[in-house]
Amino acid sequence: MPHLFVEYTDNLDGFPEVPVLTALNATVIASGEVLDECDLKSRVTRTTRFAVGNDATASRGFVHAELRLLTGRTPEAKRDLSERIAAVLREHTPKPEGMLVQLSVDVVDMDRAAYFKGRL
Amino acid sequence: MPHLFVEYTDNLDGFPEVPVLTALNATVIASGEVLDECDLKSRVTRTTRFAVGNDATASRGFVHAELRLLTGRTPEAKRDLSERIAAVLREHTPKPEGMLVQLSVDVVDMDRAAYFKGRL
Amino acid sequence: MPHLFVEYTDNLDGFPEVPVLTALNATVIASGEVLDECDLKSRVTRTTRFAVGNDATASRGFVHAELRLLTGRTPEAKRDLSERIAAVLREHTPKPEGMLVQLSVDVVDMDRAAYFKGRL
Repeated sequence: MPHLFVEYTDNLDGFPEVPVLTALNATVIASGEVLDECDLKSRVTRTTRFAVGNDATASRGFVHAELRLLTGRTPEAKRDLSERIAAVLREHTPKPEGMLVQLSVDVVDMDRAAYFKGRL
Repeated sequence: MPHLFVEYTDNLDGFPEVPVLTALNATVIASGEVLDECDLKSRVTRTTRFAVGNDATASRGFVHAELRLLTGRTPEAKRDLSERIAAVLREHTPKPEGMLVQLSVDVVDMDRAAYFKGRL
Repeated sequence: MPHLFVEYTDNLDGFPEVPVLTALNATVIASGEVLDECDLKSRVTRTTRFAVGNDATASRGFVHAELRLLTGRTPEAKRDLSERIAAVLREHTPKPEGMLVQLSVDVVDMDRAAYFKGRL
């Protein structure tokens, strides 16, 4: 059931989308928090129109992930997942010379009572 | 005020974006949970870079919807909306031979005290 | 740490993406709610496939913003941010003749205990 959304700014040339997805899914599955591996659905998008703070130049970029999980995880389990995801992103994200690159991971509860899940 | 976001993986060839939007809006409006029909704002996006579980091949796809509503609905009303949306998606989503296609609907509360709503 | 997502429908020809980002960031930073200006990460996306209510024509459009903040702001601070963002969007959004254009701002808490933040 988890959904993972990763977004990176397009000044991070060479961001390796497929390796990042593969590594993230392996890491999240290895955490033991996903009952069935095929429940984890992840995607990467490239953000082309952005601004970081008051800087209009290309000297700032970011990678941001959002993990959405059904309610019930402990705060510790969520923090652990957040850090695992950040470690993968840190390892794979290119760091252009002179650029400030921020990294963030948001973990969001999904309402178990309202969530629908099925297969075609 | 509701916002509906639908996303589908691009291995679901022929996903009928416009008919899905039309059917979803008709269904959500018919639920009686939208005071003014024009408040319902829906969009569909095609996801091109994704991974489902530990599988790097094209044999898995998904359709995911997120409905965002102002706080105040009962759990039953939210579950009902979730199931109505899932039913529309199930009816319209193509099922390629041999592909595992997952379907999910997340219903999210929006904070009524902070939400801004207006018209130009 | 705040994340700001702005989305507009593609029937709003001439929506000024860069000026909107610049003005929004200046406004949110001026609110005093962002400790370090470079923490504010904003993006604009153009929505091409959408439907507003039961109307399939091009006579309805919208601009929607979502501001994600770490938990801890008062309801008043969140409402204030929401209104500041709406004011910037109202000022910059084109209003095509005969079109109903809706404007909305959603303010969302991010779980401080689980949120990861770092730099490369």
